[in-house]
Amino acid sequence: MSADPIPPTIEWRDGVVRLIDQRRLPGDLVFLDCRTVDEVCDAIASLAVRGAPALGAAGAMGVALARRTGEPLEAAAARLRSTRPTAVNLAWGVDRALAADDPEAEALRIAADDVERNRRMGKHGASLLPEGVRPLTHCNAGALACVGWGTALGVVRAAHEAGLKPDVWVGETRPVLQGARLTAWELSRLGIPHRLIADGAAASLMAAGEVDCVLVGADRIAANGDVANKVGTYGLAVLARHHGVPFYVVAPRSTFDAEVPDGASIPIERRGADEVLVIGGHRVAPDRTDAENRAFDVTPAELVTAYVTEDGVERR
Amino acid sequence: MSADPIPPTIEWRDGVVRLIDQRRLPGDLVFLDCRTVDEVCDAIASLAVRGAPALGAAGAMGVALARRTGEPLEAAAARLRSTRPTAVNLAWGVDRALAADDPEAEALRIAADDVERNRRMGKHGASLLPEGVRPLTHCNAGALACVGWGTALGVVRAAHEAGLKPDVWVGETRPVLQGARLTAWELSRLGIPHRLIADGAAASLMAAGEVDCVLVGADRIAANGDVANKVGTYGLAVLARHHGVPFYVVAPRSTFDAEVPDGASIPIERRGADEVLVIGGHRVAPDRTDAENRAFDVTPAELVTAYVTEDGVERR
Repeated sequence: MSADPIPPTIEWRDGVVRLIDQRRLPGDLVFLDCRTVDEVCDAIASLAVRGAPALGAAGAMGVALARRTGEPLEAAAARLRSTRPTAVNLAWGVDRALAADDPEAEALRIAADDVERNRRMGKHGASLLPEGVRPLTHCNAGALACVGWGTALGVVRAAHEAGLKPDVWVGETRPVLQGARLTAWELSRLGIPHRLIADGAAASLMAAGEVDCVLVGADRIAANGDVANKVGTYGLAVLARHHGVPFYVVAPRSTFDAEVPDGASIPIERRGADEVLVIGGHRVAPDRTDAENRAFDVTPAELVTAYVTEDGVERR
Repeated sequence: MSADPIPPTIEWRDGVVRLIDQRRLPGDLVFLDCRTVDEVCDAIASLAVRGAPALGAAGAMGVALARRTGEPLEAAAARLRSTRPTAVNLAWGVDRALAADDPEAEALRIAADDVERNRRMGKHGASLLPEGVRPLTHCNAGALACVGWGTALGVVRAAHEAGLKPDVWVGETRPVLQGARLTAWELSRLGIPHRLIADGAAASLMAAGEVDCVLVGADRIAANGDVANKVGTYGLAVLARHHGVPFYVVAPRSTFDAEVPDGASIPIERRGADEVLVIGGHRVAPDRTDAENRAFDVTPAELVTAYVTEDGVERR
């Protein structure tokens, strides 16, 4: 048991993958137990578990489940990998477990490692921030996007613990509202001051000098440094550059994909139009209206001020 | 009676101001009858009627109601003006009716004039657009924001009638979702192809070359050309400039305020946090989370490619 105000996002419990069901947040903190690869695939596709580093652990634990239940490993791995195409960590976790003699031990190692790397990332990132910093973050790159602690939000947490008194702008992150639902939930539980904004409000806050930096996670970073992340990230990067605001990408080494030369080569997931058309079960648009829903965008490397990894800060 | 698929947004009916209740769209097309200045003020404050040109007519009709009911005119005018501070047309309509010998006749003139000016604006604006144009619009600058026809969306409608086959990107426009609820409703009724997007998706569509221009309305244009409009507009202007996409502001002369030197002098309305925190009656953020909700932002004149008014196209 941990005194952490945020329980582990994903845990291996003797043949059961236990997840925080993120679809139910912020209203209810409930757990989902997956006992089969199909259940893990469903949890990933439905966003019960999401976030690149968390998907790495989920992929590895899915392979470990397949070994336990006697499913053919390669087929299970292929199913897991195909649930979400953009975050490279999912395939990375699947492949790590697949290559291991003991997938279960490897999954546990990945999970423990994740938290430890995130804490290092947090310290490196916090060293970039002044006292009273007002960072803007997008989507959820917190403990819920990882096994624990968080990447971009882990930097905020480290800054908070170091007494820097961060005051966070949380972009709500339509269509799935990960900022409003998940990032605000984490910051509330951690007692870190924050204010929610509509995504379109970021530009005028920057113009007013009220944003000191942008902190985001990443789903995949190409060999040339281009960053795929939640849709809306690229716009923030352009706005940050226009206003002279530093733009930091916080991600573990496992998010860097040397196989992919640049952002144009990263597959961008298209999700269902209903994520845009329906909010909280309520259809907001007319019946005949359709929506376009590309879930990620690509930020060119030249708009990134620095990458923060477990190894330190790499300025461009 | 009109064969227009969109009924008048606001009408004077012998001592009653009849409005489309825009809070109920797109689900229900229902009308709200206001018989007193207070009822008009409530309709404006609650966004039953909104949009700069529509507020001009509402202000004038409010003064006409006060004359009918025998309320002191100056006090009624002050109450009407104070309901919403950013759109200059509201004060303009109030002052026009107040200065007229017959406020009722003046209100009718403003309403009739609005549609006629919007149609001219539409023709001027459509002359800027190529066949198959894919404009991006923000908020609602359509018939519902005016007495009829629309400003930015009136340009789209004129282009559609001219056979240019526009295919519109509709930014949903959080927090109040005027794009999803109102612009999509108008385009559906007019049979104009369109797709809804989350506001954060605009940048990557521009990067992909899928946006040919941005068309927006305005709530107030300062003497130096700075434009106050729905929050999110300024970010789109920065993104449009970054991607070489033309950014057009479509507004009648009554939106230009010679008394205000620049955008910094335009009052920006702050609205309740619940517009961000609660969607369709459902709270999306944690209980202890607060939100910042500045309803408008300012686009500097240098980011505007051209202003389209009833008098023609003014390029900068």
